[in-house]
Amino acid sequence: MAVMTSTAASQTYQQEFTKPDGRPLTLYGLRPIVVTSEIPSPSPDPVDARPVMRWHPLRGEWVMYAAHRLGRTFLPPPEYNPLAPTSDPAHPTELPRGEYDLAVFANRFPSLTLNAPEPPPGPADTRAGVGACEVVVFSQNAAGRLSDLSDAQMSLLLSVWADRTSRFAAGGVIKSVLAFENRGVEVGVTLHHPHGQIYAYDHLPPVATRMLEMAQKHQAETGNAWISDFVAAEREAGERVVHDEGAALSIVPPFARYTYETWILPARPVGLLSELTHDERDAFARTLKDALLRLDALFGVRMPYLMTVHQAPLDAPHPEFPLHIELYPYLRAAGRMKYLAGTEQGAGEFANDKFPEVAAAELRAVTLEDV
Amino acid sequence: MAVMTSTAASQTYQQEFTKPDGRPLTLYGLRPIVVTSEIPSPSPDPVDARPVMRWHPLRGEWVMYAAHRLGRTFLPPPEYNPLAPTSDPAHPTELPRGEYDLAVFANRFPSLTLNAPEPPPGPADTRAGVGACEVVVFSQNAAGRLSDLSDAQMSLLLSVWADRTSRFAAGGVIKSVLAFENRGVEVGVTLHHPHGQIYAYDHLPPVATRMLEMAQKHQAETGNAWISDFVAAEREAGERVVHDEGAALSIVPPFARYTYETWILPARPVGLLSELTHDERDAFARTLKDALLRLDALFGVRMPYLMTVHQAPLDAPHPEFPLHIELYPYLRAAGRMKYLAGTEQGAGEFANDKFPEVAAAELRAVTLEDV
Repeated sequence: MAVMTSTAASQTYQQEFTKPDGRPLTLYGLRPIVVTSEIPSPSPDPVDARPVMRWHPLRGEWVMYAAHRLGRTFLPPPEYNPLAPTSDPAHPTELPRGEYDLAVFANRFPSLTLNAPEPPPGPADTRAGVGACEVVVFSQNAAGRLSDLSDAQMSLLLSVWADRTSRFAAGGVIKSVLAFENRGVEVGVTLHHPHGQIYAYDHLPPVATRMLEMAQKHQAETGNAWISDFVAAEREAGERVVHDEGAALSIVPPFARYTYETWILPARPVGLLSELTHDERDAFARTLKDALLRLDALFGVRMPYLMTVHQAPLDAPHPEFPLHIELYPYLRAAGRMKYLAGTEQGAGEFANDKFPEVAAAELRAVTLEDV
Repeated sequence: MAVMTSTAASQTYQQEFTKPDGRPLTLYGLRPIVVTSEIPSPSPDPVDARPVMRWHPLRGEWVMYAAHRLGRTFLPPPEYNPLAPTSDPAHPTELPRGEYDLAVFANRFPSLTLNAPEPPPGPADTRAGVGACEVVVFSQNAAGRLSDLSDAQMSLLLSVWADRTSRFAAGGVIKSVLAFENRGVEVGVTLHHPHGQIYAYDHLPPVATRMLEMAQKHQAETGNAWISDFVAAEREAGERVVHDEGAALSIVPPFARYTYETWILPARPVGLLSELTHDERDAFARTLKDALLRLDALFGVRMPYLMTVHQAPLDAPHPEFPLHIELYPYLRAAGRMKYLAGTEQGAGEFANDKFPEVAAAELRAVTLEDV
């Protein structure tokens, strides 16, 4: 078992395993990790993924094809939860029993894999779907939410995302890493156990490319890191800041695309989660937890949302890139979902019914006691 | 009443009106237009829209704010359909009674307006939401579908889209026009009367910008129009062509982002619908109708979808831009919706479970008789 960090205040633990089907598993904990069962896999068969990428010649982006994802033959019992620790050895899940807080393993149905074979000859600009897809299980509590994690566990999650990113960076193949959580039956999530995913790309996807370009342009034109100017302006304006921990804060940005869109940012320019100090990481974790709790309190329902973690590309040092988390709440009012329709998908521009300063005031006003 | 086109085979008619609240209305027909009631509006009050745009500094795109859209005080009776001809003068709809096929009017709750006032001082890069939002009612039959239009009516719709685009082009303010239809309760559509919308922008939105750049690049590198090379390659491969009318065809593109994504294209390079000949327009209309019917036949349910009409930007002549229609069916299998999650929204890259050539074969195999 490896000790991940070694200052007394924030010692954490991790341990590596290999599943029966060959996939790697890492368990992470705030205390020493203890495993009390076999390391399971829902199926003993090695993953046979042959993902492919094709180039979209008019949008200028790759499209991923993973035909094996539809070939799932595994038929679990109704109450089976693949992300819970295995309780019945006849129906192994993805995780063992034991003492640990978080777990990360390679997705059994990946859209990208590091060993993707060269595809058979096909249309022009077809290539192997090289990359990686990981599952991050946030907790052993199947009924919990990400925001039910303790402050220390939330900080551990940030360390885990940082650790996965550092591993990909060390491998040399991966150029961009996106951690995210998609939550809510309203957006097709059928597995309620709190978990997220990580997509690792062997190239810079369009959003990372664009954000890097825009941040570099700001720095070249002003001499300042974009995030420094942004945080200073928002703190001065005040009306869109939701919560401020000093080293990190949450803001409904003045250019919010979703009604209650919330960004969680460090207060100084940092490109990667691994570059945060322990204190900054703890403040970032508390701010993220606060933002998630406010979304659930807003309408008194579990807010369906997408959370994306934006870190600097790994192809070269990019100190201009602003590390931040974006939360897209899918409700624009109680019971009213935001859908991406013509202007969002066909033109690439969002229409929003409410000004961000109004949304921020509503988020500040919620009562968090009974969430 | 104006006669829109005058060849005997395809004569069409249009007539202009002004609603009580000041908004313009155009009725279009295959036969002379006859109006047999007052021109109505759901409310006599002039539209007081003050849309605003703000610049997203990291994605490099405008975001539209239309706070008045949430302020709808109009409380119609339960069965009230604002897109049906007015039957009860106590509850006026958007349209009069009479003989006409299609109607276009300015949206009462626009995200953009041509006379948007300068906004009060706000965050940096805030400006008036200049543009236009129109509603296109496809039929007087509230229970129908777009694909229930006759071939001649479908061709008329293409003429209507062309006419609206030409009007915006003549005004000089609008630089890009997007016509679209969003259909299905699954994607939040509550008004089932067949209709679409038109968004007109005073700038080039990201998707139009990108498509133009990519098409120009192809033309510069090869000397050929992108669409000529694409259609030739797909006809030679054959496996992704769904329907071919000669002058127009439908294809599941090799880079489809949605499982049953279907493109409708003219067979020669054309940037604008207005540049199609009558014969080409008729072939394009038949191909579009065929594509829509196949989507409904595929799983035996009305397929929820987004349809977007991509025409060349209006800021300058752009002969390189390939006019085409994109259909995004939201079902990736029977009863299984495609949602845009982490990789699509956070990275800008789609994951698709099925190869386009397989999807195209399924679409070709459906029986259209009983649709």
